[in-house]
Amino acid sequence: MTAELFRRYGYTGTGLKQIVTAASAPFGSIYHHFPGGKEQLGEAVIRRSGQMYLELFETIFDAAPDALTGVDDFFAGAAEVLRQTDYVDACPIATIALEVASSNETLRVATADVFESWIAGAAPRLARAGLDAATARELAIFLVAALEGAFVLCRAAKSTEAMEAAGRRVHEVLVAALAGPEPR
Amino acid sequence: MTAELFRRYGYTGTGLKQIVTAASAPFGSIYHHFPGGKEQLGEAVIRRSGQMYLELFETIFDAAPDALTGVDDFFAGAAEVLRQTDYVDACPIATIALEVASSNETLRVATADVFESWIAGAAPRLARAGLDAATARELAIFLVAALEGAFVLCRAAKSTEAMEAAGRRVHEVLVAALAGPEPR
Repeated sequence: MTAELFRRYGYTGTGLKQIVTAASAPFGSIYHHFPGGKEQLGEAVIRRSGQMYLELFETIFDAAPDALTGVDDFFAGAAEVLRQTDYVDACPIATIALEVASSNETLRVATADVFESWIAGAAPRLARAGLDAATARELAIFLVAALEGAFVLCRAAKSTEAMEAAGRRVHEVLVAALAGPEPR
Repeated sequence: MTAELFRRYGYTGTGLKQIVTAASAPFGSIYHHFPGGKEQLGEAVIRRSGQMYLELFETIFDAAPDALTGVDDFFAGAAEVLRQTDYVDACPIATIALEVASSNETLRVATADVFESWIAGAAPRLARAGLDAATARELAIFLVAALEGAFVLCRAAKSTEAMEAAGRRVHEVLVAALAGPEPR
């Protein structure tokens, strides 16, 4: 529920009062569970959401018959969620990452850890599909970057055009990488 | 200066007082110039920053001997600025776009207009390099998405690895598109 508020209003724009109201909890309870206040709560939300999204990626990817289909399914799923939620439900990590990168070191590190866990989740799956470890890591980073950038453009434009464009080009890059270096 | 505050703390995290202090202006003057208050000021900053970045892209791109070099120079320049500013100076539009996409329609539309102006600036340049209009537009969207996503990852990790990965893959996609559809 707090993750939903952060996703919708950002970290800075979400007040502790709002969080407590949404959770139907007494105000003091937040300091009972999170003595570090909003920052500690923010860190917990970032790490828990990051873990959930990692598991979602792994589930979609591992259910697909091959790596290419897995990537396609993931981008198609992201576009579908954007449409279904009127472009509210995108990545909750990116908003906080951009807000706090230069102002809150604890939360910056939490967002960096989450992105790294996604890269570390995707890379071995791409390696198993036939890429060497260095290429697999670079493509995993590229995949996450393309997805995150597409979320930014899609939410701004209220259109899935950027997610579709990104998905097609990530697909193309993966096809080329799996085919290996070409002699031309 | 206001753009710098938004870039560093986000739109929500920047108070009018901070803006006025940074500008060494009397508090009332902000409502003289921007009777719509922070929202109107925010919109002006988004549109003006967007225009500046568009001109920067056009300058770098048009100074390059060809489209591929232009794209390479742009990604290399983005990585260099991130390093030089300790990862503070990235895209000011993306942070605001994610913060306000679901909560402030005026500012959402302003960020969407800026991204569209960048796509509209890049597409004809890619078309002139030899792509059909539809492919040029899709690659322009992909280029902006890859850049924005790389900014998110780079700021979080305080590393330019994602910008370098994105730049190499956008380069590769552009090479393949310029070579035309392959018979394999």
